[in-house]
Amino acid sequence: MIILGIDPGLRFTGWGVIERRGNSLVHIANGTIKVPEKAPMSERLKLIHDGLREVVEKFAPSAAAIEDVFVNMNPQSTLKLGAARGVAFVVPALFGIPVAEFSPNLVKKSITGVGHATKEQIQMMVGVLLGKPATDSEHSADALAIAITRAHS
Amino acid sequence: MIILGIDPGLRFTGWGVIERRGNSLVHIANGTIKVPEKAPMSERLKLIHDGLREVVEKFAPSAAAIEDVFVNMNPQSTLKLGAARGVAFVVPALFGIPVAEFSPNLVKKSITGVGHATKEQIQMMVGVLLGKPATDSEHSADALAIAITRAHS
Repeated sequence: MIILGIDPGLRFTGWGVIERRGNSLVHIANGTIKVPEKAPMSERLKLIHDGLREVVEKFAPSAAAIEDVFVNMNPQSTLKLGAARGVAFVVPALFGIPVAEFSPNLVKKSITGVGHATKEQIQMMVGVLLGKPATDSEHSADALAIAITRAHS
Repeated sequence: MIILGIDPGLRFTGWGVIERRGNSLVHIANGTIKVPEKAPMSERLKLIHDGLREVVEKFAPSAAAIEDVFVNMNPQSTLKLGAARGVAFVVPALFGIPVAEFSPNLVKKSITGVGHATKEQIQMMVGVLLGKPATDSEHSADALAIAITRAHS
């Protein structure tokens, strides 16, 4: 079973693909879609769409997951993050792939065994669980953590 | 020039298509994409995507516009509205159609001449400007107002 994790954002969208083979998890690929800040909103979202579409077409996951976010920023930023998340939800759905949503605490617990792990602890455990893949950003590391959570769920 | 206005929301997404012929505006069509509240987020967003895609394919607009919203609700609702808006921005972009964003006050001013018109005044003026089209909801009436604003801009 191939699983896609996505950590969406309007500037950086991390993605990670893993495979569950019996009881073990295998790292397949990860990356970060980088979007120029100055482009119009529709262009930025199209870049996220196109990037994720390429990933789905290349790796053909049968499941996808996104972290449910706890928002504590201003409303306009929340609205923009929501837009990036909307695109991240819709791309797998266009391929008929179900998209699960997990709370940050569930992701932490799934990876480290506790609900209040630090970012560093999570990234370390992602490395341990997947055989230390090279991740190209914290966003792709987060995306792998979300994919692992989906595999454990 | 055919213009698509969109009033996105996770439950109701209004759309309106008008044509600018010289100095006059002609109503082409309007409608509301209704999405069941209970479906998973990715399914709901896919329904919005599919509905808007159908509209774009049917009417082939060369410009689109969305109202910039003033958000004063809780962060989780803002995030969800953002997701619907993300899909509304990305669908025209996938067809290479530029998507403009207008503030509520600009829409009001463009339709009624003043920046602080009521919802009823706007809907009345939309009717006057477009020859009283039957609108199927306040969302599609808002979408027509946004399309008119784009035509005037």
